[in-house]
Amino acid sequence: MTTRLRTRVAIVGAGPAGLLLSHLLHRDGIESIVIDNRSRDEIESTIRAGILEQGTVDLLVASGASERVLVDGHRHEGIDLHFDDAAHRIDLTELTGRAVWLYPQHEVLRDLLARRSADGGEVRFGWSATAVRDADSATPVVVGTDADGAPFEITADVLVGADGSRSVVRKAINGTDAPGYFREYPFAWLGILCEAPPSAPELIYSASDEGFALISQRSETVQRMYLQCDPELDHTTMSDAEIWDGLQRRVGGTRLIEGRIFQRDVLRFRSFVARGLSRGNVFLLGDAAHTVPPTGAKGMNLAVADVVLLHAALREQAAGGGRGLLDGYAAAASERIWRAQHFSWWMTSMLHATPEESAFDRQRRFGELRSVAGSRAGSTFLAEAYTGWPLTFTL
Amino acid sequence: MTTRLRTRVAIVGAGPAGLLLSHLLHRDGIESIVIDNRSRDEIESTIRAGILEQGTVDLLVASGASERVLVDGHRHEGIDLHFDDAAHRIDLTELTGRAVWLYPQHEVLRDLLARRSADGGEVRFGWSATAVRDADSATPVVVGTDADGAPFEITADVLVGADGSRSVVRKAINGTDAPGYFREYPFAWLGILCEAPPSAPELIYSASDEGFALISQRSETVQRMYLQCDPELDHTTMSDAEIWDGLQRRVGGTRLIEGRIFQRDVLRFRSFVARGLSRGNVFLLGDAAHTVPPTGAKGMNLAVADVVLLHAALREQAAGGGRGLLDGYAAAASERIWRAQHFSWWMTSMLHATPEESAFDRQRRFGELRSVAGSRAGSTFLAEAYTGWPLTFTL
Repeated sequence: MTTRLRTRVAIVGAGPAGLLLSHLLHRDGIESIVIDNRSRDEIESTIRAGILEQGTVDLLVASGASERVLVDGHRHEGIDLHFDDAAHRIDLTELTGRAVWLYPQHEVLRDLLARRSADGGEVRFGWSATAVRDADSATPVVVGTDADGAPFEITADVLVGADGSRSVVRKAINGTDAPGYFREYPFAWLGILCEAPPSAPELIYSASDEGFALISQRSETVQRMYLQCDPELDHTTMSDAEIWDGLQRRVGGTRLIEGRIFQRDVLRFRSFVARGLSRGNVFLLGDAAHTVPPTGAKGMNLAVADVVLLHAALREQAAGGGRGLLDGYAAAASERIWRAQHFSWWMTSMLHATPEESAFDRQRRFGELRSVAGSRAGSTFLAEAYTGWPLTFTL
Repeated sequence: MTTRLRTRVAIVGAGPAGLLLSHLLHRDGIESIVIDNRSRDEIESTIRAGILEQGTVDLLVASGASERVLVDGHRHEGIDLHFDDAAHRIDLTELTGRAVWLYPQHEVLRDLLARRSADGGEVRFGWSATAVRDADSATPVVVGTDADGAPFEITADVLVGADGSRSVVRKAINGTDAPGYFREYPFAWLGILCEAPPSAPELIYSASDEGFALISQRSETVQRMYLQCDPELDHTTMSDAEIWDGLQRRVGGTRLIEGRIFQRDVLRFRSFVARGLSRGNVFLLGDAAHTVPPTGAKGMNLAVADVVLLHAALREQAAGGGRGLLDGYAAAASERIWRAQHFSWWMTSMLHATPEESAFDRQRRFGELRSVAGSRAGSTFLAEAYTGWPLTFTL
């Protein structure tokens, strides 16, 4: 027995992109259904980085999606670039008038899910999309199986793929042969969560002789730190002492406060942009459209920027303004996506040694770090990207 | 019969670095001998790029080396970055308060040689250095053969290698096994000189679908232009029409004024920094110490920056201030050298397609160009490097 639903906007994926879009559409009286193959609990407990651009925070607050970000989040007005055995602070706020907020992605998800629940939003957990039908028609259809394993079909005026890096919706737009633009990096991060107070008030990005390290924070009692490693590393072979030693040696003068390591994971570095971001009434958002390496923390923020564009387009169409913005979505989103891809690649390349790096390239890289940190213009160029280019939203 | 000479400072190489150093030392009453294996005529007719940083011009004028640069040179207050089929002007002067000067290297050489002649400076043409002796002693010796093929030995308190990329003096400092830091690029420029009026008032650096092109100027009647090509290109196989067509297609809307092409050459792209820049009383300057790819025109300017540092050190020592600055020369010069190496690599990488460039890297590169040209901070960071970081000289 197939469940058949009809909605204005069908959204595949209850990550930050899908939920935020659904929330913004709701505020405009535009109905949507969000489906996700995970349970609510799984979604809320997925640990991901959490540096929010100023514009992301502004939107979450102004749209009523989160007030908690201002209470439980931490405003950071700078970052440290650590190289040549010294800290070089980039004063984000002095340089750009903007800041970033440390607020983990699962907290954003909790806020968005609570908001959608409170507003009576339709979010169906455990619903797996398996295919898109009639992608070129006026009313595309997403099909799959619901939480009980029974088939469903949702017909919509607009179908949105916010279904992450293994997107089913993307296949309907791009096929499977030439999925998009891709880059892999010959290194990864070993990430840890540990029970300890913060070792530093702001993030430390370290390019040391030993390789890259990132010291970040999670809360007063839990910290998140990263250590550059081989992508094939079996992290179970490393002792806690080796991890602490590796981190400590990469940040020189900053004494890290150690604590019990209770989670380890290896993050691979990939860059990806889907070849097509839309087709007729089918649109891609967030990780379904692009992946960035974690350096520079653009992932969730870029998803939010996609949402802002698609929301404006749907709002304009609903107000009788036609589909001009919808048809322009892919080009408009691409503009920011490629700037963010460049920034993520740049931060990554500037801060990491690769196994094949020549002695020339290494010296050049440190010349670059000195140039950027030593120039107000260079530091500002970095800070503009880090805090996020302007995000113009209409609510 | 060996000619034996004794001097305070022996300078191997009568290029811009060697001659300028000799000139500045003369102003302080410090005697030097310059030797070069070329004839004066060869030196004056070597065609090289000629973009002078603001600081280079200031030094040439203030030291009395050239007044002609202000008369016959052309002050350029901007450059065009051409991409996405449009010109994006970087207003150097508005962004940095500084400018660059178009004044070819052979004109600088003519000025310096005239100045040295007028001041009775000792410059020996056709003298080939073949080796350095006693490099670790208080009085190093350079040996070779003079213009008549007879042997010479010059003993000096300080020996300076300003003898270009095939430096003999460099071998005495670094040996031959590990000469330094090196990078090669998988492309080259086909440069032409043609009889035509200028096609544009300022330099145009174009990153087009067809590859890179640079439109530069030489005089009211002669122009210099460059076309990215394979390093193995046999330029005799290209017709003039093919060259003009290639240039024209890379600069889109700007109509190039064609004229008879009377010189062609292929410029290879290399980056190099000598591992050691000094040893005892032996010092390297200019191309003997480093090579940059031509994009960004840092070559001669970086040589001038080396001269400024070594001149200050020799002046201080002559004034009884000890050898502190001499011993710090290598570290001080390295600082600027690696920033300039990064800048030259950056301009080169951002503007050139390589044969192995992936679709991702290509899109990222254009994202970078848009970010840099679209951001005042990004444009300023580029303009600071292009017009030259501050050059502090004491005369």
